[in-house]
Amino acid sequence: MKKLFAEFFGTFWLVFGGCGSALFASQISPSLNEQIGILLLGVSLAFGLTVLTMAYAVGHISGGHFNPAVSFGLMAGGRFPVRDLAPYIVAQCFGAIAAATALYVIVNSSGTPDFSAPGAFATNFYNAPVYFEKSYSLTAAFLTEFLLTAFFLIIIMGATDKHANGKFAGIAIGLALTLIHLISIPITNTSVNPARSLSQAIFVQGNAISQLWLFWVAPILGGISGGLIYKFLLQKKS
Amino acid sequence: MKKLFAEFFGTFWLVFGGCGSALFASQISPSLNEQIGILLLGVSLAFGLTVLTMAYAVGHISGGHFNPAVSFGLMAGGRFPVRDLAPYIVAQCFGAIAAATALYVIVNSSGTPDFSAPGAFATNFYNAPVYFEKSYSLTAAFLTEFLLTAFFLIIIMGATDKHANGKFAGIAIGLALTLIHLISIPITNTSVNPARSLSQAIFVQGNAISQLWLFWVAPILGGISGGLIYKFLLQKKS
Amino acid sequence: MKKLFAEFFGTFWLVFGGCGSALFASQISPSLNEQIGILLLGVSLAFGLTVLTMAYAVGHISGGHFNPAVSFGLMAGGRFPVRDLAPYIVAQCFGAIAAATALYVIVNSSGTPDFSAPGAFATNFYNAPVYFEKSYSLTAAFLTEFLLTAFFLIIIMGATDKHANGKFAGIAIGLALTLIHLISIPITNTSVNPARSLSQAIFVQGNAISQLWLFWVAPILGGISGGLIYKFLLQKKS
Amino acid sequence: MKKLFAEFFGTFWLVFGGCGSALFASQISPSLNEQIGILLLGVSLAFGLTVLTMAYAVGHISGGHFNPAVSFGLMAGGRFPVRDLAPYIVAQCFGAIAAATALYVIVNSSGTPDFSAPGAFATNFYNAPVYFEKSYSLTAAFLTEFLLTAFFLIIIMGATDKHANGKFAGIAIGLALTLIHLISIPITNTSVNPARSLSQAIFVQGNAISQLWLFWVAPILGGISGGLIYKFLLQKKS
Repeated sequence: MKKLFAEFFGTFWLVFGGCGSALFASQISPSLNEQIGILLLGVSLAFGLTVLTMAYAVGHISGGHFNPAVSFGLMAGGRFPVRDLAPYIVAQCFGAIAAATALYVIVNSSGTPDFSAPGAFATNFYNAPVYFEKSYSLTAAFLTEFLLTAFFLIIIMGATDKHANGKFAGIAIGLALTLIHLISIPITNTSVNPARSLSQAIFVQGNAISQLWLFWVAPILGGISGGLIYKFLLQKKS
Repeated sequence: MKKLFAEFFGTFWLVFGGCGSALFASQISPSLNEQIGILLLGVSLAFGLTVLTMAYAVGHISGGHFNPAVSFGLMAGGRFPVRDLAPYIVAQCFGAIAAATALYVIVNSSGTPDFSAPGAFATNFYNAPVYFEKSYSLTAAFLTEFLLTAFFLIIIMGATDKHANGKFAGIAIGLALTLIHLISIPITNTSVNPARSLSQAIFVQGNAISQLWLFWVAPILGGISGGLIYKFLLQKKS
Repeated sequence: MKKLFAEFFGTFWLVFGGCGSALFASQISPSLNEQIGILLLGVSLAFGLTVLTMAYAVGHISGGHFNPAVSFGLMAGGRFPVRDLAPYIVAQCFGAIAAATALYVIVNSSGTPDFSAPGAFATNFYNAPVYFEKSYSLTAAFLTEFLLTAFFLIIIMGATDKHANGKFAGIAIGLALTLIHLISIPITNTSVNPARSLSQAIFVQGNAISQLWLFWVAPILGGISGGLIYKFLLQKKS
Repeated sequence: MKKLFAEFFGTFWLVFGGCGSALFASQISPSLNEQIGILLLGVSLAFGLTVLTMAYAVGHISGGHFNPAVSFGLMAGGRFPVRDLAPYIVAQCFGAIAAATALYVIVNSSGTPDFSAPGAFATNFYNAPVYFEKSYSLTAAFLTEFLLTAFFLIIIMGATDKHANGKFAGIAIGLALTLIHLISIPITNTSVNPARSLSQAIFVQGNAISQLWLFWVAPILGGISGGLIYKFLLQKKS
């Protein structure tokens, strides 16, 4: 039970901190032609720090997944028992939705937000011109989410390998999530985490729901692939 | 006595570095339409680095609280004796005020600053349009400060748990404070620390004093909640 | 064989993450006169984090070079057997080219990119006004790439010295690459890595190919020099 | 002798990386009204990373001072023998000047730079409107340099205390230098290091030379004060 609480609070923090920094702080223009917010760089840092901080806080309790694609990938890589998969994912989704609810309350406290634009409320998207006039296609979005989650799992499997320098895993894994956001926010708003995508889509509805499948399928397939790649191509025979 | 000196110098550094970076370096426009300052991202990093650096410098002396809400939270979590609470908080407040005095001297050395605007001299605020035309309500500010301090304490309790990877606690806790600022500077200028709020409000007076209660009540209640959540829902029975 | 897979995936990640963040996220202007991208700071961070994360993930397998100049330098410094040099460099170049291929697919999915400008597709360059009206000469580019790779190897040799605090090498080396980019992106787009330069030049052709020699010669000479400097001037007699 | 080489290369790296990032990369405006450089935040990060990386690379050889004020402070704090003070400072100044020479060559390779403005070539200054219309007075500059170097030494003394978590000292000390720059670049261009100030002033002459005294006196007095504060108020009796 403590494991599920750890996953609940960890995933709450991931969504509250990552999506919250994007909603409240990424763009701040107190006067015309000035931008003093944390930019996409700060949002990338925030997502990574949610995992880095919670990995050191509750990683010794639950392993610190905070992400269904990570749980799937570790299962595929032989590090996580299949019987724990469903309860972990449920705890992660509840944590994410609770965080999105808190964000929704704060956002609404200063007026009625308009959630009709793609990417609103930090939702994930494809085929939508959010950051550019051009937009990235479904194929580009799928490939990006798949590849990034696969490498995320290779890093997680490697950094927690018994032959590795395991005490640093929290730093490596947290900063890997920062790196992933540095690459891909402009493409999909970066998911690599189905629970995070779900929680934001619930409040926005519309396209965010109809595109949600991609942010479950691509990260989970990528996570499983990364777990298998590490297990079969990189891991030493014990 | 060395413990109180450690808290004094640590909290001085937190206010001098965190509020100082906001005052001196966050916005620099050498020519029109250019912004080369450290932005809210740099201010967030600075606050976190004050704690990270002092945690490794004097954490072995006093535990490295530098924050009344942290002392309250650790007491609630069973990690800090109640008899040390008052002296620690006094040392923290004196350190914060000494730092604010140094900042005041430097700010005044280059002209007479105008402290009438909300958020001036890096004070905390609610219900004031500092970074946006809209402003966040008292409810949003309270909820944000409460939640962020609660999670700050969960991270502190977890990262210093005897079952955790404790040598990394300074990194996890310092970067947690960076993350907290990445989320909430635009909402309240981020307190989560009553001593930091007090020290800046003393020099500005006015609204900063009349709103000061929130930045004592919400962080302390949040800190206590975080300490209790970790103790009862997450901590292993010893 | 696992060593070569580790170098393949590590160099893939270096190019996909470093060059990818530059291509997708460095400049984002959703409206006129606003810049919310990750800037050259975020690109610098991304390159460093690719190495930091992979060093902790697969460093225990291959040593974590991900760069022909590093392999040459470690050989010169007496830390890497000459017989492994060729296979490592082949694996690194294949990994880099595979990553560039994935980037190429994603970039092309949202229109036909124009690769005629110097520095396009994150290629390295000299004597070209990419970031400034003025441009840095061949001499400046060579000196910069040579010096930075030499210091990179001094840091790698030192941080992995048996008398050093070796568990932190992944942090020191990864952040050294971030620092190197903070200095030199405006000069050459920063190589210090022949495989990274090769992979981008292949897709762009033209000047990127005719200038490619510098980004093999200068980093490799610099790497060898750094390895020798550490070995003869700094390393303790064992 | 290896110790002096370590100080030479470490201080070279500090000046080449810190001042170099400021000169080459801090402000990049490829088109009007856009700023994509590393900003003062990136310069702050660069200075800190020079120390973080070299601390892990050669700290086990020389202790990793790279700064006359640090050597003075550690001597005052009882951690560094007085007979090594002069040779260390000479090696640091030579390293700094060698780096400034390399920077000078690169800067001159793309035209004849104008060094007449205050702060040119990353020199330190006071009483000059470099980043603002207003300027900070001699008093503000002295107080800032004094206080920041004092706290820098408190952190260095504390993080390397035998009761502290000493393996993390390189991270704490490096990031302390980043924090110091986040606070004070707009005030003095940040020295806290007499060798760094000397090396840039030599090439610029004029005001940079006539103001150089402050950037020797304030950091050295601050460093000594910090060493004494830690020794007498914070350090446990052994």
